[in-house]
Amino acid sequence: MKALVYKGPGEKVVEDRPVPEVKDPGDAIVKISKTTICGTDLHILKGDVATCSPGRILGHEGTGIVEKVGAGVSTFRPGDHVLISCISSCGRCENCRKGMYSHCSTGGWILGNQIDGTQAEHVRIPHADTSLYRIPDGVDEEALVMLSDILPTGFECGVLNGKVVPGSTVAIVGSGPIGLAALLTAQFYSPAEIIMIDLDDNRLEAAKRFGATKTVNGSGAKAVDAVMKLTGGRGVDTAIEAVGVPATFQVCEDIIAPGGTIANVGVHGVKVDLHLERLWSQNITITTRLVDTVTTPMLLKTVAAKKIDPAKLITHRFKIDQILEAYDTFSRASETGALKVIIEA
Amino acid sequence: MKALVYKGPGEKVVEDRPVPEVKDPGDAIVKISKTTICGTDLHILKGDVATCSPGRILGHEGTGIVEKVGAGVSTFRPGDHVLISCISSCGRCENCRKGMYSHCSTGGWILGNQIDGTQAEHVRIPHADTSLYRIPDGVDEEALVMLSDILPTGFECGVLNGKVVPGSTVAIVGSGPIGLAALLTAQFYSPAEIIMIDLDDNRLEAAKRFGATKTVNGSGAKAVDAVMKLTGGRGVDTAIEAVGVPATFQVCEDIIAPGGTIANVGVHGVKVDLHLERLWSQNITITTRLVDTVTTPMLLKTVAAKKIDPAKLITHRFKIDQILEAYDTFSRASETGALKVIIEA
Repeated sequence: MKALVYKGPGEKVVEDRPVPEVKDPGDAIVKISKTTICGTDLHILKGDVATCSPGRILGHEGTGIVEKVGAGVSTFRPGDHVLISCISSCGRCENCRKGMYSHCSTGGWILGNQIDGTQAEHVRIPHADTSLYRIPDGVDEEALVMLSDILPTGFECGVLNGKVVPGSTVAIVGSGPIGLAALLTAQFYSPAEIIMIDLDDNRLEAAKRFGATKTVNGSGAKAVDAVMKLTGGRGVDTAIEAVGVPATFQVCEDIIAPGGTIANVGVHGVKVDLHLERLWSQNITITTRLVDTVTTPMLLKTVAAKKIDPAKLITHRFKIDQILEAYDTFSRASETGALKVIIEA
Repeated sequence: MKALVYKGPGEKVVEDRPVPEVKDPGDAIVKISKTTICGTDLHILKGDVATCSPGRILGHEGTGIVEKVGAGVSTFRPGDHVLISCISSCGRCENCRKGMYSHCSTGGWILGNQIDGTQAEHVRIPHADTSLYRIPDGVDEEALVMLSDILPTGFECGVLNGKVVPGSTVAIVGSGPIGLAALLTAQFYSPAEIIMIDLDDNRLEAAKRFGATKTVNGSGAKAVDAVMKLTGGRGVDTAIEAVGVPATFQVCEDIIAPGGTIANVGVHGVKVDLHLERLWSQNITITTRLVDTVTTPMLLKTVAAKKIDPAKLITHRFKIDQILEAYDTFSRASETGALKVIIEA
């Protein structure tokens, strides 16, 4: 089968690989229908993710058809149409029992990282009973690819951790796919204002179409000044960090109102300064989270009920043999206008 | 009347001052019975608290008898026996309506900071209806002085923000009065382990008597190693920072388990490093808080019901004319063994 393989920092190739086999009783083999590329895949290609070794098939998002299941799988049968979660979880360990699937003792984010992933024609999914979701009839399959990772990530790590409530003021720093996923799902809770901050006018335009009430093109002190002006000097109740660099985290520290929450979503490569000399008395909360995908069933229902349309995030479509072109388009997003790209296997 | 007056960094004197008068309709004048000294008073004396100007009578803790009330006060009458809260709150502004009294638009922590405080024979209390608490008959008055600040601070900023739950593992970094207040109140929630960390064996001995299940004498990597060993390599569910320097906050970052909470209580003078390059994926929460004193009525009931005995924290007693001696004893705590000192007015 064709597969996109990480060969070390800066290197990726399309290779012919054997179709994976059931290894453990909980495994399912899924024939991929659609997959996509995540910002995290670009992090891996930069060499930022130490757990991912050269030779790995990348990808942790996708939909497909179950081909084979191990003897221990009871929820799925060959022929089932499924959504693949970026998080594999046993459902049995202490962290899984708490709903913290991201820290499953034999799972977590391993797909396309510590085991071969979804940017291929077939994939092996461990702990299939608790890591796949049945796709309801009549739901747009492309839209559901957004539910493998970015929708639950924006929602759980940003909106839920950020405690977005009716009437509140929210700022989202970063209007990329994850920031936009947070924007779409924040609207479940009817905040009064959602201010999107980015340096790319195209992405801010998308944000406006997707429901942002205000946009700010700027960074650093300029972004902070604009937000403080928009909030009458008060700051925001929720600041969602959807970039992952010190400067954007600093903006969140500078715009958060007393009692507010900074919900970090960004993948950070270096430490940040936390200004406790000012913030110790400000009754703020800072959260971090690797998505647990506990809300995937809930998000599936919101898509089926047309409360949200994540297909809006899809800007480009490719076939599996064009995957290098898809990577090129996705990684040059500021020129190509790419948000999420769909790859058909 | 006699009063302890801040004269600028490093300088304090006992002065004769006029007895305060009712200025606003919501004011009460309270004759102080007992007061104490807080670590924050030492911060002021170091020049760390920019909002406190020379000439200020210090002190934000105490009990006393109401002498006079303004025309707008409806809850208290002269002769009432009261506990003074370190937080003055109007009860009417947006933050007060949310229970965030610490950020009251015309109050907050102003006593002994922006207005004259309790280390005197009389004090003016603004917003008296919502800043004083009636002392129930038969309750030890000295114990209640601990409820002006340190008990609610340890409880709200440490235990409640830290989400201490039955069976959980808690570490408290700093076994001073605030750390010990967190230790006492953490036990309301029956955690499995409370590990106290400090460099002073006397304070760790006190911690053991007050209910710590384990103690660690060490700092930095030594403290981290000890905690990780005590928790089987897992780390703690709740880390309460009760010192306020970068090194102790770093210990909290290094011992927190996935899904855990770092509750900052310490007053910080400089920024800290937040290692998001490691913590972004660890599902942790960091909280800061200036005490709101929303739990003062609840804590009063726990003292009255003898569920907790905050008088344990009192090590020394002085008269108001010995207040300079009291400061000396309190500020040399490692030699004198002082935890909280009581000053009788």
